[in-house]
Amino acid sequence: SMDGAPTPASPAGLSAYVAVSQLLGLTLLATTGAWLGRYRGGVAWHSPLQFNIHPLCMVLGMVFLQGDALLVYRVFRHEAKRSTKVLHALLHGLALVIALVGIIAVFESHRTKGIPDMYSLHSWCGMAAFVLYLLQWLLGCGFFLLPGASFSLRGWYKPQHVFFGIALFVLSIAACLLGITEMLLFNIRDSYSHFVPEGVLANTLGVMLVAFGLVVGYVLTRDDWKRPPLAEELALSMDFKTLTEGESPGGGS
Amino acid sequence: SMDGAPTPASPAGLSAYVAVSQLLGLTLLATTGAWLGRYRGGVAWHSPLQFNIHPLCMVLGMVFLQGDALLVYRVFRHEAKRSTKVLHALLHGLALVIALVGIIAVFESHRTKGIPDMYSLHSWCGMAAFVLYLLQWLLGCGFFLLPGASFSLRGWYKPQHVFFGIALFVLSIAACLLGITEMLLFNIRDSYSHFVPEGVLANTLGVMLVAFGLVVGYVLTRDDWKRPPLAEELALSMDFKTLTEGESPGGGS
Repeated sequence: SMDGAPTPASPAGLSAYVAVSQLLGLTLLATTGAWLGRYRGGVAWHSPLQFNIHPLCMVLGMVFLQGDALLVYRVFRHEAKRSTKVLHALLHGLALVIALVGIIAVFESHRTKGIPDMYSLHSWCGMAAFVLYLLQWLLGCGFFLLPGASFSLRGWYKPQHVFFGIALFVLSIAACLLGITEMLLFNIRDSYSHFVPEGVLANTLGVMLVAFGLVVGYVLTRDDWKRPPLAEELALSMDFKTLTEGESPGGGS
Repeated sequence: SMDGAPTPASPAGLSAYVAVSQLLGLTLLATTGAWLGRYRGGVAWHSPLQFNIHPLCMVLGMVFLQGDALLVYRVFRHEAKRSTKVLHALLHGLALVIALVGIIAVFESHRTKGIPDMYSLHSWCGMAAFVLYLLQWLLGCGFFLLPGASFSLRGWYKPQHVFFGIALFVLSIAACLLGITEMLLFNIRDSYSHFVPEGVLANTLGVMLVAFGLVVGYVLTRDDWKRPPLAEELALSMDFKTLTEGESPGGGS
């Protein structure tokens, strides 16, 4: 820290929750791989298996990496703000590239098989999540990484960025749940209601996606785990309050 | 207010967002009714149409009324806390009763038609949402309405109650989206991909459910629209800070 004191340790509860989130995230990926490998023939780009690239990329990019990018500000809450910010942007950028590969895979697979695009609620929600996620990333880079935006403009945009960031993460998970339901009803329609192993496995994947969202959401929204504001941010917020409320800084009690 | 000053008006932005949420909520109900009435033969309890009671009750109870119960603390943010609390509990209670009717409808309809229960991801997510919602309501009544819980115990439980309340509202909406997808793939499987009107209408209902969740979530999480804390809550939170941080109340700067 700036006064030379040792960097404070993260609260024990935070570390435990982050560890659980990473365990859940890796289990998500393993379960998706197991489903596609064991029951759907595996994955390969130039083949009838090209479709299977889609769920794998979306779970990796739009859920695991997007979630981890959100957690960066809690995990590195006592590191330099600039490096944390760059890591946040890089992880989201990687998530976007992987999601794009997943989207190309499903469009190419549809074209090969003569299936129409963008007719289902899954495709509507998923495409909305991806396009708005890309937009959010561009706005985030513009406001927080480029030097142009003023300090007060950043302060105005930040709560919007945080709200829509969490909302898009949740929408991405919902789109995955819809995709799981579509895949099961297309592939094992008649045996799904007899609790066949593939159905139970894919349902379990859905439940773990919800659990990942819950744990990440809890870590992000817990007040006492938020990044402590920098001295100049506190000063600005006090100036701002003074300006808008017309009160002198010391007259609160 | 307690010092005899006139009750402050709600911020104009808040009123506009609440108005939009109510317009969206009513449109949700009308669209669900239009879907079931126009394409699914309508609703009736003792008949093959009994299933259709299910989506209608779940959208009304688990989405519209649950959402409105959450908004109560923002809409009546300057009213007496006790009456607001009772209204919050009553609306959630009504939502639970209506959701229970919807759940009985689908179980009875399955029994009549010989369809197994609880095999799909929709049923897992939906049942989890309902059972946890009931539990959350019981805990909420126990902590906040019964006289037993101490002030500090309430203060500890409140952030958990708020987080899980919003999470269950989001999970309820996700379960509705899964239900829409199931209904479309069971009923119009082959024509869904040709953008038939029923598919587009039900997809639009899904998008409106997401929009309702977004608007309600935005109103709930915006810091400056939160209920101003009561004098004794502020005092307690200062005492608590003093006890846990070992600082004297006046020594912050």
